[in-house]
Amino acid sequence: MSAPDRPSWPAVNDPDIVREIEALVLRYERALMENDLAVLDELFWESPRTVRFGARETLYGAEAITAYRRQRGGAPPRVVVRIEITTFGDDTGIAHVEFRPQGGDRVGRQTQFWARRPEGWRIASAHVSMQE
Amino acid sequence: MSAPDRPSWPAVNDPDIVREIEALVLRYERALMENDLAVLDELFWESPRTVRFGARETLYGAEAITAYRRQRGGAPPRVVVRIEITTFGDDTGIAHVEFRPQGGDRVGRQTQFWARRPEGWRIASAHVSMQE
Repeated sequence: MSAPDRPSWPAVNDPDIVREIEALVLRYERALMENDLAVLDELFWESPRTVRFGARETLYGAEAITAYRRQRGGAPPRVVVRIEITTFGDDTGIAHVEFRPQGGDRVGRQTQFWARRPEGWRIASAHVSMQE
Repeated sequence: MSAPDRPSWPAVNDPDIVREIEALVLRYERALMENDLAVLDELFWESPRTVRFGARETLYGAEAITAYRRQRGGAPPRVVVRIEITTFGDDTGIAHVEFRPQGGDRVGRQTQFWARRPEGWRIASAHVSMQE
């Protein structure tokens, strides 16, 4: 169903929405580097549907993600080199973050899907990997 | 802005929308295994914003993705072991596909963000990686 007769479509990259996602991505990045568990927990959607595919772990559900975070002792230091955000409408956005491990040259990639929920913007899906 | 006073929120996992995304994921998987370039091109959003983070490549824009597809000569055979879909409203969905390379036991993960556009459902972002 492509519904070509709809009167309007979700706006792509409304500047206000892009700015909101940008601020969230930077807040997440700072919390990640500081291993601020309260903020990291807050920014992930508290749902059994939330998924996080990390470089070394495949996690389904917010509980598994929170538990993982508590035993890993923080993320490796990294430097962000590129951020690309695409938003659809007022309530959904994708954030692509390309990074380099500090002192390394492997290419790291992070994708986050942000959904605006009644409690605020939350990450419903995240995928982090190093390019092979 | 969490806008707690809004009258309604995008429905999570409306069964009809989940079914649409499921069908698309299976269509994509078949096209991938058959290296059906026409279908793979069709299902990716034709936009410079489209992103594809593959296991060995980091691609920005539909043109780069299409060009890559033409020189790689098909994806390695794989077996899907789990599909988890989360949809928000009628126009957005995330598809998580866990797979194993045929004859291997590494854990592969694919995330796709699907957006319904006037031309139909399209992948606006994809991330594929092998768990390290």
